[in-house]
Amino acid sequence: MTTIKSIELPDVQSRLSSSYFKLTRVGVTGVKKLVHIKRPNKKSVLPLTVTMDLFVDLPASQKGSHMSRNLELVSEIINQTLKTPVSDLESFCAEVAELLLKKHEYATFSEVKAEADYFLDVIYPSGQKGSEPYKLVAEARAKSNGELTKLIGVKAIGMTTCPCAMEGVRKLETRDKNCSAPTHNQRNIGTLMIEVPRGTMVVDADDMINIVEKSFSSPTYSILKRKDEAELVLRAHAKPKFVEDVVRDILSAVLKRYRDLPDEVLVIARSESEESIHKHNAFAERVTTLGELRK
Amino acid sequence: MTTIKSIELPDVQSRLSSSYFKLTRVGVTGVKKLVHIKRPNKKSVLPLTVTMDLFVDLPASQKGSHMSRNLELVSEIINQTLKTPVSDLESFCAEVAELLLKKHEYATFSEVKAEADYFLDVIYPSGQKGSEPYKLVAEARAKSNGELTKLIGVKAIGMTTCPCAMEGVRKLETRDKNCSAPTHNQRNIGTLMIEVPRGTMVVDADDMINIVEKSFSSPTYSILKRKDEAELVLRAHAKPKFVEDVVRDILSAVLKRYRDLPDEVLVIARSESEESIHKHNAFAERVTTLGELRK
Amino acid sequence: MTTIKSIELPDVQSRLSSSYFKLTRVGVTGVKKLVHIKRPNKKSVLPLTVTMDLFVDLPASQKGSHMSRNLELVSEIINQTLKTPVSDLESFCAEVAELLLKKHEYATFSEVKAEADYFLDVIYPSGQKGSEPYKLVAEARAKSNGELTKLIGVKAIGMTTCPCAMEGVRKLETRDKNCSAPTHNQRNIGTLMIEVPRGTMVVDADDMINIVEKSFSSPTYSILKRKDEAELVLRAHAKPKFVEDVVRDILSAVLKRYRDLPDEVLVIARSESEESIHKHNAFAERVTTLGELRK
Amino acid sequence: MTTIKSIELPDVQSRLSSSYFKLTRVGVTGVKKLVHIKRPNKKSVLPLTVTMDLFVDLPASQKGSHMSRNLELVSEIINQTLKTPVSDLESFCAEVAELLLKKHEYATFSEVKAEADYFLDVIYPSGQKGSEPYKLVAEARAKSNGELTKLIGVKAIGMTTCPCAMEGVRKLETRDKNCSAPTHNQRNIGTLMIEVPRGTMVVDADDMINIVEKSFSSPTYSILKRKDEAELVLRAHAKPKFVEDVVRDILSAVLKRYRDLPDEVLVIARSESEESIHKHNAFAERVTTLGELRK
Repeated sequence: MTTIKSIELPDVQSRLSSSYFKLTRVGVTGVKKLVHIKRPNKKSVLPLTVTMDLFVDLPASQKGSHMSRNLELVSEIINQTLKTPVSDLESFCAEVAELLLKKHEYATFSEVKAEADYFLDVIYPSGQKGSEPYKLVAEARAKSNGELTKLIGVKAIGMTTCPCAMEGVRKLETRDKNCSAPTHNQRNIGTLMIEVPRGTMVVDADDMINIVEKSFSSPTYSILKRKDEAELVLRAHAKPKFVEDVVRDILSAVLKRYRDLPDEVLVIARSESEESIHKHNAFAERVTTLGELRK
Repeated sequence: MTTIKSIELPDVQSRLSSSYFKLTRVGVTGVKKLVHIKRPNKKSVLPLTVTMDLFVDLPASQKGSHMSRNLELVSEIINQTLKTPVSDLESFCAEVAELLLKKHEYATFSEVKAEADYFLDVIYPSGQKGSEPYKLVAEARAKSNGELTKLIGVKAIGMTTCPCAMEGVRKLETRDKNCSAPTHNQRNIGTLMIEVPRGTMVVDADDMINIVEKSFSSPTYSILKRKDEAELVLRAHAKPKFVEDVVRDILSAVLKRYRDLPDEVLVIARSESEESIHKHNAFAERVTTLGELRK
Repeated sequence: MTTIKSIELPDVQSRLSSSYFKLTRVGVTGVKKLVHIKRPNKKSVLPLTVTMDLFVDLPASQKGSHMSRNLELVSEIINQTLKTPVSDLESFCAEVAELLLKKHEYATFSEVKAEADYFLDVIYPSGQKGSEPYKLVAEARAKSNGELTKLIGVKAIGMTTCPCAMEGVRKLETRDKNCSAPTHNQRNIGTLMIEVPRGTMVVDADDMINIVEKSFSSPTYSILKRKDEAELVLRAHAKPKFVEDVVRDILSAVLKRYRDLPDEVLVIARSESEESIHKHNAFAERVTTLGELRK
Repeated sequence: MTTIKSIELPDVQSRLSSSYFKLTRVGVTGVKKLVHIKRPNKKSVLPLTVTMDLFVDLPASQKGSHMSRNLELVSEIINQTLKTPVSDLESFCAEVAELLLKKHEYATFSEVKAEADYFLDVIYPSGQKGSEPYKLVAEARAKSNGELTKLIGVKAIGMTTCPCAMEGVRKLETRDKNCSAPTHNQRNIGTLMIEVPRGTMVVDADDMINIVEKSFSSPTYSILKRKDEAELVLRAHAKPKFVEDVVRDILSAVLKRYRDLPDEVLVIARSESEESIHKHNAFAERVTTLGELRK
């Protein structure tokens, strides 16, 4: 691009707002960037294809938010992480959220959301090495009073087998209790999000994926030899689960795993089953705090 | 299907929950139904293809929610509306929400969300008759203490022209103020949602669409003759708007149009621009009450 | 909108193309319209929320296609159907395709695609009345030599139970052949499309949905009482199916049902399983002609 | 997982098909994997989050395809690329396609499709370093007679300004030809795919992105200072383009850039505009061969 000489262009955004209302969120959505993460306990740098939303609030007196600043500071921080990778996606969001507040001097609140595909290495029952796909979710909110909250989340796909239809089948077939009975089973998307105040211990995404996967009737794998498949089916049928059970088992595991986190920590657990016997989905969710769960 | 004799099948859902946690939302998502609406001021019945989510809460003591009841009562109410159409989508949601609470005797809260394509008849500048597409959104929440809230929402697609780039171009070209200057413009999705307490006056979706469309730089049309297109472009450039402006102009219009609604009424206004000069979107939002806006 | 006086605006589209290449498809996508259908054998008019794509080809000599004509003629035909509804979605597409060729006098080819949500009334095993959702797909292609082809398609959601895992489980448990064995089962999307030359007998979408639903291990329902659910599970496990089996059983049924259709009729059958034991889907497809299938 | 002893499990897939029809495509869709690419001219290894579909055909005599083999060989090749990265995504697809044919000894055809987010480093007009997002598309088809075809594709987002509305505005305002006139402009998605026979020279994705971006009225950037934004708007208005023009300019550039590729090479060029003055999109496409373009 050719440059032009230094004509002073008007700062339209800083003008007085004609309709005198403040705004809750002003910013950009659907920003795609490559972010480099380096976990403290891992050797290699992990590149994440991240889709981000970035917001600040806007006072009634100001016409527009300087949105290009949002993109500039994301680029700045990403360029930094090329040299010094951040430790995790939520820390990246937190850095961006704090810098958003600095660059938008009129803002009292900033919010950053990020989502990325994520892979974990696995050794399949067959001994073959491979990887399974997950989603990482991260959020950060900063306030002009210095408050900062980070939220770490994971989404995992697993399998649920329905306890209700299984018992119905047993009754209909007057079947031996020791013999496994068929039931409908399906793909389930489990979500766990934990909001963590500044200075709290790190919550590891791999741990959270582990918690969600153990709460299904069974985790799922891209590679399954014939025997492994039959065994997985039997194990899943030995552990039938409603979406309600998945959420409650996630909550139980969270309580055990995060004894050291304070009461005010927000916890969201969710399970959605793409029901094989229906065209719609089954859904269960708990939105709460660790303190509430500990009661 | 062949029927079987009256074996008593177990009610697995009613059993004691092993993990003793209550759940915030349990239900079904992605339910597709055809719902018949008859506006009080219109002759013909309007069929809507509705996608719905239905939830109740679940006490800690109960293993599962009887989700099939959700679908049964939706079908019941839809069958009723075939004879006596409801007046609007939010009233349909409210009826379902109240019946959800009745059928799930253990629930203290119910929530119903619905979205549907919606069309308004228009006469194009060319004189041709046609229709433009919108989205209707409706929500209802009922509590066991008798509280009921309905939310009515609309989504409309329009056009915004950027005020900032327009002034920049004027400066660069030292252009006459009376001559319209080019700027980037783009598709914008405007959203308005108004939550209405029981017994309040009806809020009409067509009015709300009108409010949103007037807040764009210009509404858009599927049929535009060459002259109509050039005129629309000129009008849109005479009314440049940030996403912030769209939201504030929606809020101004809401204040004027709904003087009789009480202070506690929730209002959500949103504008998202699929920026033509960026690969990401610009976004502005206000979540507030009429009372707050009236201050 | 205010009208302006009759200034002659330039027809930019009709100018000579600077890059001298013809184009295969030029047109509009994502057009949403409400189309009224009246089946010959049914009393009531069926309103469909249709999403359409409309294309013509463009000769090398012409700069642009007059896309506004596409929308004008769609509106014209829709306005006609308000008085005289067309008999089906594919006839609507065919009318539009033929009119596209007439209005774009330079075109030698036109193509119209449409998709719509569609509902069938059902009486559930419980005796309750309701409806199940499907998708209708229609396409039409017209040529300047008078050729016209219509394609009718349906998408249905059903359930498949895996034969391979079921046999594996039987072996592992050394299970009695008469006792049903668990296996993984999942939501399956079955698709059938039949391309029909001009003048051929009408192919009914409800018949096609019936064919697809019978090819699953079981159709699925939004309302299932406890016993109905257990029975459905047992029936589905008595009829285990790979995606390959679903496609082949659709093809078998097509051969039987459409004996009177000519050999050149295109047939597309497809089955996609949202595997409960994997995070990816299983897929099978046959693209062929009735003549090939009859060999 | 615990292993079980060597019970011989039945190979259900290899059984005779009961419905005697061959199938065009059988396989898996939506497979997510992390693939490592190392361009010959670049230092660092590029990790791509790839979503893949993998198919083979199936003879009439065989009941099922051994789909788990598809996943096993993808994992094998990915594990190889961890040590020796492949040079590009289409070579990865080609390797997988050839191995698919080997592992499915009954297949005569295999097909592999892959899509991935992709980033290019840029220096913005402001001097700041950053990156812009694109999509890579790759396909490979192998036949049992040794034929192998690879397809390389890119998708880029840019901006188009409408020539027709611009001339209309000029006429309405009797505007000086030297002064830029406003018009509607919008986000445009440009696609270029080139199918390359075995042994042909490598086609570089970065080159193709460059071709697509130059065919827009202007490329777009995530970071634009006020002046850069105004300049970009002016440049885009100095180069108004229909979707038809975008496709033809891509084709012109392809002819110039790929003089050494043979006539039979398939070329697909596509442009879709998210029209700011309409709720629907404008679309143009050419599907052809280099030989046809050279005529």
